[in-house]
Amino acid sequence: MPSSRFLQTPVEPFRVEPGLAPEEILARLERISFQGRNLGVAYRVWRRMLTDRDLTIFLGAAGALSAGGLRLVIAHAIANRYVDCLVSTGANLYHDLHEARGGRHYIGSPRVNDATLQEERIDRVYDTFASEEEFVENDNWIAEFTLTLEPRPYSSREFLYRLGERLWEETGAEGILTAAYRDAVPIYCPAIADSSIGMGIAQARHLRADAAHIDVVADVIESSNLVIASGGTASVVLGGGTPKNFINQAIVEAEYYAPQIDGHRYAVQIVTDVPHFGGASGSTLDEAESWGKVATDAARVTVNADATIALPLIVSALESSAAAIRRERAPAPYQASEGALLRAGRAISAARFDERP
Amino acid sequence: MPSSRFLQTPVEPFRVEPGLAPEEILARLERISFQGRNLGVAYRVWRRMLTDRDLTIFLGAAGALSAGGLRLVIAHAIANRYVDCLVSTGANLYHDLHEARGGRHYIGSPRVNDATLQEERIDRVYDTFASEEEFVENDNWIAEFTLTLEPRPYSSREFLYRLGERLWEETGAEGILTAAYRDAVPIYCPAIADSSIGMGIAQARHLRADAAHIDVVADVIESSNLVIASGGTASVVLGGGTPKNFINQAIVEAEYYAPQIDGHRYAVQIVTDVPHFGGASGSTLDEAESWGKVATDAARVTVNADATIALPLIVSALESSAAAIRRERAPAPYQASEGALLRAGRAISAARFDERP
Amino acid sequence: MPSSRFLQTPVEPFRVEPGLAPEEILARLERISFQGRNLGVAYRVWRRMLTDRDLTIFLGAAGALSAGGLRLVIAHAIANRYVDCLVSTGANLYHDLHEARGGRHYIGSPRVNDATLQEERIDRVYDTFASEEEFVENDNWIAEFTLTLEPRPYSSREFLYRLGERLWEETGAEGILTAAYRDAVPIYCPAIADSSIGMGIAQARHLRADAAHIDVVADVIESSNLVIASGGTASVVLGGGTPKNFINQAIVEAEYYAPQIDGHRYAVQIVTDVPHFGGASGSTLDEAESWGKVATDAARVTVNADATIALPLIVSALESSAAAIRRERAPAPYQASEGALLRAGRAISAARFDERP
Amino acid sequence: MPSSRFLQTPVEPFRVEPGLAPEEILARLERISFQGRNLGVAYRVWRRMLTDRDLTIFLGAAGALSAGGLRLVIAHAIANRYVDCLVSTGANLYHDLHEARGGRHYIGSPRVNDATLQEERIDRVYDTFASEEEFVENDNWIAEFTLTLEPRPYSSREFLYRLGERLWEETGAEGILTAAYRDAVPIYCPAIADSSIGMGIAQARHLRADAAHIDVVADVIESSNLVIASGGTASVVLGGGTPKNFINQAIVEAEYYAPQIDGHRYAVQIVTDVPHFGGASGSTLDEAESWGKVATDAARVTVNADATIALPLIVSALESSAAAIRRERAPAPYQASEGALLRAGRAISAARFDERP
Repeated sequence: MPSSRFLQTPVEPFRVEPGLAPEEILARLERISFQGRNLGVAYRVWRRMLTDRDLTIFLGAAGALSAGGLRLVIAHAIANRYVDCLVSTGANLYHDLHEARGGRHYIGSPRVNDATLQEERIDRVYDTFASEEEFVENDNWIAEFTLTLEPRPYSSREFLYRLGERLWEETGAEGILTAAYRDAVPIYCPAIADSSIGMGIAQARHLRADAAHIDVVADVIESSNLVIASGGTASVVLGGGTPKNFINQAIVEAEYYAPQIDGHRYAVQIVTDVPHFGGASGSTLDEAESWGKVATDAARVTVNADATIALPLIVSALESSAAAIRRERAPAPYQASEGALLRAGRAISAARFDERP
Repeated sequence: MPSSRFLQTPVEPFRVEPGLAPEEILARLERISFQGRNLGVAYRVWRRMLTDRDLTIFLGAAGALSAGGLRLVIAHAIANRYVDCLVSTGANLYHDLHEARGGRHYIGSPRVNDATLQEERIDRVYDTFASEEEFVENDNWIAEFTLTLEPRPYSSREFLYRLGERLWEETGAEGILTAAYRDAVPIYCPAIADSSIGMGIAQARHLRADAAHIDVVADVIESSNLVIASGGTASVVLGGGTPKNFINQAIVEAEYYAPQIDGHRYAVQIVTDVPHFGGASGSTLDEAESWGKVATDAARVTVNADATIALPLIVSALESSAAAIRRERAPAPYQASEGALLRAGRAISAARFDERP
Repeated sequence: MPSSRFLQTPVEPFRVEPGLAPEEILARLERISFQGRNLGVAYRVWRRMLTDRDLTIFLGAAGALSAGGLRLVIAHAIANRYVDCLVSTGANLYHDLHEARGGRHYIGSPRVNDATLQEERIDRVYDTFASEEEFVENDNWIAEFTLTLEPRPYSSREFLYRLGERLWEETGAEGILTAAYRDAVPIYCPAIADSSIGMGIAQARHLRADAAHIDVVADVIESSNLVIASGGTASVVLGGGTPKNFINQAIVEAEYYAPQIDGHRYAVQIVTDVPHFGGASGSTLDEAESWGKVATDAARVTVNADATIALPLIVSALESSAAAIRRERAPAPYQASEGALLRAGRAISAARFDERP
Repeated sequence: MPSSRFLQTPVEPFRVEPGLAPEEILARLERISFQGRNLGVAYRVWRRMLTDRDLTIFLGAAGALSAGGLRLVIAHAIANRYVDCLVSTGANLYHDLHEARGGRHYIGSPRVNDATLQEERIDRVYDTFASEEEFVENDNWIAEFTLTLEPRPYSSREFLYRLGERLWEETGAEGILTAAYRDAVPIYCPAIADSSIGMGIAQARHLRADAAHIDVVADVIESSNLVIASGGTASVVLGGGTPKNFINQAIVEAEYYAPQIDGHRYAVQIVTDVPHFGGASGSTLDEAESWGKVATDAARVTVNADATIALPLIVSALESSAAAIRRERAPAPYQASEGALLRAGRAISAARFDERP
């Protein structure tokens, strides 16, 4: 073996054996190279987050992961406290609601005539189809629900909490919104108006002028206060988009009012965007460090892989290996009361930043 | 020459000559293959949009294009009516404001120690640096500006109009916000809270509880009504993200209330995302057709290229070749009055959808 | 459920459970969307190939998969007849030889000062390091081995067979070259000179003018005859590059001399390149159909994923689920005799194409 | 302006003006960010190469650039000495030959039924079509040409020189092969057998057993000696593949025999592959530095862009701006004599490496 400080830990070629469990596959991947290694590291880092008790673990979910079949994985992660707070696109929540209400998404193909789909009112998401008619019904349902709310501004978090409540009462179905409702796990949706949920809300406004006020500024304040109230933060980000930025912005804003706050202690991103076009979605965790979003000594890893491959594999492995750890974390520390989010019994303000010396 | 319906138009190898103008380069690219061809087609399609008089041309701008050096190209496109409405991330507008206020972005490198940058309070956007201190000043400036507004809800469009107004009065500087203000060209920012502009707004709320209400639902309604009021629409989308979705959602929402509305007649997207991971940013214009976002017979093209290459080249070519066309389009048909957006003297409602039989 | 021919098979959201085996994970992924679905399909298609007895399954391996930790997965696939013929870059074979001879690759990082590595004579492959000194020893070993060969032209297949023989005799080590040698499974390396193996061979030529003649044209003929002699073909391609093209070219060439030959009956590609830049590596299996490389009714799938994630997972699942099937296939039908490749006892010509009416 | 060593050179927003020449566009792009900046830098670096008189500039061309419409750009670069040596895939040379012989490629579409194309014998390269029948004629032409050669081994360089000669005599057509023949500019094709040229050569072998010996090992030796004979090297690489590796391998091999040799002094790569999957095509120029392929102080830049956009733009700009410089470089210093490559009148050995103390 050549002697060099750079040549310390050999790559261990992956050895195929029958009966390997997913956690063993991931452990072996960690000893090889490229994105296999990164996937193995991501599993280990997420597992370590779970042992860091006072941590708030943010999950960012962009893309169309619910339509794509991951809604129950995310719901599972919420219900079992693999994560403490979800930041999502509206699409993921809308498609979750669609299935909770009994709708389905369908196995389709990207090699289809879209003009024909349009005529038959089928909406396509890459290789997945859905009925536009059912989507219109969802929009109406959301509009009707919105009109049941007392006419005042709602943060997206509070709005989604109440939406989850209604959905649970009406359907008793598993899903992201219902799981989050049941444990009062906060969901933020920074671009809620820019989604079919927003379309339903706008249709409520159309029907009643004083309805449907979403106070997205309250989300900014409350999420920063959640960071300040936590004993540290971690992020698991699937894709980029507004969820990734919102989670990081909460840190930056928290640091402004409470300078002792550090960046994330752990950061995992599972992403298919690349950094060299300058977009936030593909930006590296090193770049995030320059902004103070990620702590300099954070355990961090970026996996360049589709979440529909990476997430089921990692969460399946956590489910087998981390059950004991997870039990020590549970239950979720949240409650909702009169519109406020409570963490460990204490209200998190959505009106003013919590300042610290 | 073999006879086949598939073999009709030969590729014309690009021929290098001294003194080629950008419009000639693009015309020659259209006769070759791959993304060069698509770039040439994009130029031609955009040029054709300009001749379609009653059209509303949406420009979607994701990424960090202002920090990346494209803010004056976008401002130029607004001022010269290459586009009629901008939908943008907050980042693009914030970095535009930063430079309008005298700040700069700096040539940097992705191969730098980010821990050092963090210590020196330098924020990195891939290969570009900025001063965090100056960013904090901007945030404060935005907070102060926000506190000058009468305390009521503002659509992002109205908020940004007033922000542009203040910026123009204070600086007289070129830029996106000031150009849009001067011609009352609407800017929508669907995820405004999820940006440094949102941070500034939140800081205003912190200072005064009744300040800083952004009514993102009003944007949804007003933008759909803008579609309904137009004689057709076109989209030029740089990157994906919320701008791309918002522009398309306005069509879908408009179709709900005014079924005679068609999808975009012209659609150009300049994007580096790919479709096969199912995200909206990389979704094809064919997929958009299934949703009715793009008309079945629309002139459409996707260019897989970085906007920092494609946009300066196309707009430079338009500037030389389309000056006459552009003059026939001008001036912009907008006014702002008491918070409302007027198009050709008629107010576009932000409160109710305009229904048509 | 809405009635439409497009809405037949619902996406089944992935359900997390403890103790899922890899084959169960892949079966569930097949029911979701995007690349997770494609990975599940790839597993099923490969499994089906194994039941199609008279098939020749080509494995194409580009990239730096051996340095990256996959050499024993590929060796396992050869030894257990998951594949019947390997087409590889020289790099994969060279790095396999390096480890068979006792060298290692090392866990490194892409965020390192490459000037320092250069000074310390460490060669980097993304996140993996190796000793240049050891590489120089390998080159010399290859040169010495080459000089032991009778001075005449060798196809890359024959050269590599003899290299594997020497390696097995000298080291008795597991690996790609030794596994292929032991079952006489042919390895073609279309760009053998363009690799460190080629450098070693060139150094032999330097030492003796009549040494080291590689007859790459013989590979073209022999591989086409292998197709003609087979009862059908399938391809599993990791990455693109020369291996992908060589496998497909063998079909096209075979069709020229034996027009009854069809394209691959099954085709799996695991690739991170995209089609829209026109390169062969990212080209779709549909495009391959236009050339006759893939049969019109072939079972086919492209997985956009890194092979270091996809291959260990699929082969682990095959190992558990396909053991019985595999036993029916074994053993490999090849022998090597006097430089010729024998399939089922019959020599495959490397000198003339086998013509059929 | 904030004072920091990191904040020295501001980004200059691109300013649109009528009548900008391509060299002015590129100069302005160099002052912005992301890939626009890199494209501007690439232009400047290539321009600087031309002033470094004793340099050998390698051009690597992967992909299907000739089918894609760039064959005359490459031919122009050869004829005008923007480059001194071409390393190419067989595809680029084959498609060049196809057009030189009067065939064409055709504007097609990736959204077509490939089964129909297959039936009509149309071959597709992404959005470009060609006639399979014409391709078969080319193959036969190559086979016939090959049979005219004296039966002995030929390096790919010598084979292609003679092919260019025949093509020029027969067609007098512009193109890569004919331009290279006329100035004796060497073309290496490391994977020549893995292409339709290889298919034609193999068909010659089929017809006559002693024909068609390609000595790829001679290419390795001769190209390294070309490096040793040069006063320094530079590389411009379009895509990755075998051309990229071959150019770099020539440096590594040269360093082995002539240790005073440094890596490339200038390196430009225009690529759409990314580094994080570990493949050579996407590998960074920093990684190349670790191997000694690129000098530590080299002027280097990677542009993440499709060559069909980047190359016509850069060469058009060079054509206007660098005409004077270019004249000082010309003419090409090569001759071909009895199969040998002469540089400045002195034969470059293809049989033994030139050693230096």
